[in-house]
Amino acid sequence: MLIGKVVNTNANWLAKKITEIGGFVRRITDVRDDLSEISSAVREALKRGTEWIITSGGLGPTFDDMTLNGVAKAIKRPLKLNKQAYQMLLEKYKEMFERGILKSLDITPERRKMAELPAGAIPLRNRVGTAPGVLIKFGRQRIACLPGVPAELMDIFENELLPIIQKSIKRVYTTERVLIAKDVIESALAPVIKEAMSKHPEVYIKSHPKGRESGVSIIELHITATAKSSERIEKEMEQVVQELKEKIVALGGTAEQ
Amino acid sequence: MLIGKVVNTNANWLAKKITEIGGFVRRITDVRDDLSEISSAVREALKRGTEWIITSGGLGPTFDDMTLNGVAKAIKRPLKLNKQAYQMLLEKYKEMFERGILKSLDITPERRKMAELPAGAIPLRNRVGTAPGVLIKFGRQRIACLPGVPAELMDIFENELLPIIQKSIKRVYTTERVLIAKDVIESALAPVIKEAMSKHPEVYIKSHPKGRESGVSIIELHITATAKSSERIEKEMEQVVQELKEKIVALGGTAEQ
Repeated sequence: MLIGKVVNTNANWLAKKITEIGGFVRRITDVRDDLSEISSAVREALKRGTEWIITSGGLGPTFDDMTLNGVAKAIKRPLKLNKQAYQMLLEKYKEMFERGILKSLDITPERRKMAELPAGAIPLRNRVGTAPGVLIKFGRQRIACLPGVPAELMDIFENELLPIIQKSIKRVYTTERVLIAKDVIESALAPVIKEAMSKHPEVYIKSHPKGRESGVSIIELHITATAKSSERIEKEMEQVVQELKEKIVALGGTAEQ
Repeated sequence: MLIGKVVNTNANWLAKKITEIGGFVRRITDVRDDLSEISSAVREALKRGTEWIITSGGLGPTFDDMTLNGVAKAIKRPLKLNKQAYQMLLEKYKEMFERGILKSLDITPERRKMAELPAGAIPLRNRVGTAPGVLIKFGRQRIACLPGVPAELMDIFENELLPIIQKSIKRVYTTERVLIAKDVIESALAPVIKEAMSKHPEVYIKSHPKGRESGVSIIELHITATAKSSERIEKEMEQVVQELKEKIVALGGTAEQ
């Protein structure tokens, strides 16, 4: 990410999943494979009172896989060989050896490293790859470390982590709509959005100016409504969309859904 | 980004540009349109001693465009109407009015807001959109605020910011190579990478496991070398690539460039 070669699709996927179950993603941070950068990012997030910190990448066998080291440093716990994680690794290597993918069953320092977790951590089974995911309880805060390979990250998140996270999130209903406003510029639309949001406190409207198409300004409005009853929220949303459409037309523009 | 709808392509584009001119991107942070989140992210980056902090988005006229507010809070400076920025806005609105895009020339509070910059800031001309970019000197540190619309961000970065940033970066030569290792698993490759890097201190090797293709493990090696002479660096790179290839073959794998 930090040299512009890779887009952080893992963060995007995680943010979408967490939002879908009613969670609130506060921040996404990309850091280098650098011990002090990783630990300072984790420490800052803990200090802000973040309930769940999810890391991706850096769990593998190479020297620059140092996420667990960075997390251990941030929470001031030593790295220790975790028996359960070690067992998971042994099973993986045995299977790979039997299928002929692995030439030797030696547990080299590089392989052993993947089972060295911060003291008190719980390994999360990786059905796709080798390195297990990691769950750490730190007071009332939680740190989950997932691999960077997308298929492995998705597998551990869906099968191991999601059930645990879901328990800690209160159930809410969310509905969304997108409205395309044409021929009205953003500064004219701004007071309309402000008014709609103050009238409907459960509704959040974000405007995304999409530039111009042959001289016509195009603005995408993302409308989100959140409440405890699904019925009520749909009704509210319908009303907001109608009001916005009327206002946009009154400003001389057009509104499409 | 934080709800998984948008991928942060702006950050990626900026990281690529900055790396190309020899800069070092230390961290990428996505925050919500929330005043205290924005100011805490800026404050944390200043505290870490970051030389250049570049923000994108949140310069427009709507209520949730609050980047300048957040930055002002972080550096404890008031927002003030900046005459130069106001002049830039007036020119834009006049032009839009004359082309019939704008129905009125009124400088509403929403429009005026885009010219209210932290005290002492320098506006950066936006040739594509309305809101000017902003450059702030904070001791020896610099904060640049760019719009979120990619075409506007790119325009201001290339034409206004890049010349200033380039002056503050020492010239270095960088060369890159990608090597695809097949049929060798990452934990077997790890000591080979470690050895190559300790033998060639100007070289950095990052391994990206790409999963399996019909049972064959595939690992992409990104090799970067940095030095002050372009000739020397190419020679060094050639040598590293040759050594890696031989080692991969010795491990029973194949290596392709």
